[in-house]
Amino acid sequence: MKRNLLLLFFLFSGNLFAQNPDQAALENLADKNWQHGLSLLTELVSIPNDAAYPEQIKPNIDWCKAQFASRSFEIQELETGGIPLLLVEKKSTGASQTLLFYVHVDGQAVDRSKWDQDDPYTPVLKEMSTSGEWKTIPMERLTNEYDADWRIFARSTSDDKGPLAMFLTAWDALSEEGISPDFNVKLILDFEEEQGSPLLPVAVKTHREKLRADQMIIIDGPRHISNEPTLTYGARGIADMTLTTYGPVVPQHSGHFGNYAPNPALLLAQLLASMKDPDGRVVIPGFYDGITLSEEEKAILAAVPDDEDAIRDRLQIARIDQVGSYYQENIQYPSLNIRGMSSAWVGKETRTIVPATALAEIDIRLVPESDPNRLFQLIETHIENQGFTILDHEPSKEERMKYPKIAQLNKSISYVAFRTSMDSDAAALLRAAMQRAFGKQPVQIRISGGSVPISPFVEALNIPAITVPTVNADNNQHSPNENIRLGNYKDGIITMMAILTQK
Amino acid sequence: MKRNLLLLFFLFSGNLFAQNPDQAALENLADKNWQHGLSLLTELVSIPNDAAYPEQIKPNIDWCKAQFASRSFEIQELETGGIPLLLVEKKSTGASQTLLFYVHVDGQAVDRSKWDQDDPYTPVLKEMSTSGEWKTIPMERLTNEYDADWRIFARSTSDDKGPLAMFLTAWDALSEEGISPDFNVKLILDFEEEQGSPLLPVAVKTHREKLRADQMIIIDGPRHISNEPTLTYGARGIADMTLTTYGPVVPQHSGHFGNYAPNPALLLAQLLASMKDPDGRVVIPGFYDGITLSEEEKAILAAVPDDEDAIRDRLQIARIDQVGSYYQENIQYPSLNIRGMSSAWVGKETRTIVPATALAEIDIRLVPESDPNRLFQLIETHIENQGFTILDHEPSKEERMKYPKIAQLNKSISYVAFRTSMDSDAAALLRAAMQRAFGKQPVQIRISGGSVPISPFVEALNIPAITVPTVNADNNQHSPNENIRLGNYKDGIITMMAILTQK
Repeated sequence: MKRNLLLLFFLFSGNLFAQNPDQAALENLADKNWQHGLSLLTELVSIPNDAAYPEQIKPNIDWCKAQFASRSFEIQELETGGIPLLLVEKKSTGASQTLLFYVHVDGQAVDRSKWDQDDPYTPVLKEMSTSGEWKTIPMERLTNEYDADWRIFARSTSDDKGPLAMFLTAWDALSEEGISPDFNVKLILDFEEEQGSPLLPVAVKTHREKLRADQMIIIDGPRHISNEPTLTYGARGIADMTLTTYGPVVPQHSGHFGNYAPNPALLLAQLLASMKDPDGRVVIPGFYDGITLSEEEKAILAAVPDDEDAIRDRLQIARIDQVGSYYQENIQYPSLNIRGMSSAWVGKETRTIVPATALAEIDIRLVPESDPNRLFQLIETHIENQGFTILDHEPSKEERMKYPKIAQLNKSISYVAFRTSMDSDAAALLRAAMQRAFGKQPVQIRISGGSVPISPFVEALNIPAITVPTVNADNNQHSPNENIRLGNYKDGIITMMAILTQK
Repeated sequence: MKRNLLLLFFLFSGNLFAQNPDQAALENLADKNWQHGLSLLTELVSIPNDAAYPEQIKPNIDWCKAQFASRSFEIQELETGGIPLLLVEKKSTGASQTLLFYVHVDGQAVDRSKWDQDDPYTPVLKEMSTSGEWKTIPMERLTNEYDADWRIFARSTSDDKGPLAMFLTAWDALSEEGISPDFNVKLILDFEEEQGSPLLPVAVKTHREKLRADQMIIIDGPRHISNEPTLTYGARGIADMTLTTYGPVVPQHSGHFGNYAPNPALLLAQLLASMKDPDGRVVIPGFYDGITLSEEEKAILAAVPDDEDAIRDRLQIARIDQVGSYYQENIQYPSLNIRGMSSAWVGKETRTIVPATALAEIDIRLVPESDPNRLFQLIETHIENQGFTILDHEPSKEERMKYPKIAQLNKSISYVAFRTSMDSDAAALLRAAMQRAFGKQPVQIRISGGSVPISPFVEALNIPAITVPTVNADNNQHSPNENIRLGNYKDGIITMMAILTQK
């Protein structure tokens, strides 16, 4: 009913809003182009896109080229030495600004046995039953029905083909109304994001001139868990370390050599334990240096409508690490997370031995204040202070017999953090677009906990970057049964139209 | 040459030593029966004997029955509810003492791909080449050649069919000379030792009366690494624990929840680290209580000719745990050994997550002073003192949300330690036999680091038990390319004869 009234309203007032449509007009345009949007989405997610199998990527590149060609974008493949990046561009006469959108087209791997549908690349429509289970319903019902809470299940519906389909739908909806942006639009399409975009940092430097823009908009990732419209001004970076400790050169009988040969699992435990206090705070001196939060910043963090009771309930945890005192505050700091640990065998494979080695995989989420090389240096000094000799290779016999405690440390930096000032023009533009689209201010995330490979752009192009997440937080990205909520898909189309029409 | 002289000597003096042969006579008898001994050994090890495949065990039982029947032993199968034990007995007229020998007939599993011979159950003769590699030589050379350093390679040559073949050879050699023991002889044959003899403790209680004896002699295990004749007066027992710590109910994205959701690998590391000091000593109060070593005992420990420089060189370790200050002293104490550890994924499988659980497998080698239930109680109190709630099951959601730190603890006791007094008559008998066989005192091991399933006998029968190891320490037991050194096989036959003729 409401929709029909709005439609009526739009029919009589369309022209007034042509170049700067208001909330009602945007919603109306989304409705008008809804079937087209669904077609784009279902067609796109039907193309397998696991970049671990590069042969799957070519059809995705071809699809994107055809789509943007038909919309008269200039198209360039940017060489990376491997799978290329795709840069598409639409200039606007007299425009003084260029907005660069980042989107990725590859998807996470699929383990078909864990999906509740035969083929993760054949989209399926589902509604939640009264007993709370997802039930398949005929896709054809979308022809004349709409429920914001229905979902389309398929790999990459949310991460990240959904946002690309939103963009294309929004572009087409505006074009049909004769509306085009006041600024130049560039999109950079990444086809290896789920592989960590290994070639991207160098490629961005190489193609710096072609990528030039005034502002970068990342259309990836979920909205705040409240599912309110969201802007995210930065993302933590990520570095990692593999730490290995050593016992006897080969596993030894635990009867003959238990409490004689030093145990590498104990050494590793003692080393890891020395890095944090019982409340999960890093105790390595200097680790949190340089991070300060003003009262204003704290107010912005506190304004995020996190339901921490719900998070604890979902994670089933009785307490949180006391790096900060609540979620948004915690993620303003770098993390030091043991993401995996292994020594010899467990479970049915358990053997009565003193293991030869023990290994911990550690990831460090970075914030702008924490230069990863500085953190590595602090960690290395700490390890040495625990009596360990640090090597970057498997110890030789000579080294094993020389050093009482050896830690092999292998480290790498994937990408550093970025954080765009909330006071920037870039931030103001997007806040205004969101306000117009939804009639309220978005949830503002100063920095997100997760990492996106954006810092190479920020560093090479020296531009502000802000993420505009659109999909539902419970979309199972990176897991089986990935999905997108119809309401989020529609709001996403509206969001893209609002940005493209922002003055 | 020497051998021929001894043979001559024996021919003229045989009767003098008939009932108590001296070193020369024993060696001579061994030579005389050498070909017979080789036949028994090669025949026996040709029967596959991995008790993980129970169908392999029946032919071994049948072989043993036939062998002991042909020597007029009484034979009984002792029911266990699974694979039976075999008890064979030979009474001696007027004997006041019964010696019970323990031997096992099953062997470790074989991984054929890792053996340097086609079939681990087809014995192969090898000599070491000048470049230090084992080279196959024709088995036929044994017909008229002997080199103490040649070895026969096959599964169970050392562990533990070799000692059974030594016993049978010794028995036959003495029989042929018209010599029989002054005491009753019982042998208990275990066909599931490498599976941990799971049914043995109950069976020993059930069949206690049939097993009655004055002294138990375990013929299993390697000599001291010096390869000197050895007596071992006890063995550490073994108990184990599996310790699991908990983070979020399922793994969480380390970006979103790193330094927010408590990390179970850190909790486990902190818990394990709290149990030992940097020198590997257990710091749990009371763990080492009750263990004292007199000056006399320390002298016996110190007399063991361990070459600790060689051990450290072989293990490639720069230091040892400081529970004691040298090998023999260290193993007088219970161990607390992390034998395996795991949390989430490592290596190529590494994921950017906060793991859901972390797990440590721990074994505790027991000494007679360390009642395992007392140790478990101390460990549990210690864990609770670190702020953990101990559960014996996977935590429910309610428990996860109630207790800040949860440790699941699952524990079991395989068998306790035993240690026979070196001042006992049982010890004196075996020392005298060894002195007679080799013209010198054996290396005396107060307690061995490893565990053997003997404590059920010691407890049920309340008798002293002493191990008489015979095989070479570098026999690769429990590994591919198990072997026995010919010199050890011959010394083993001599050892058995010396025991069987001891007054």
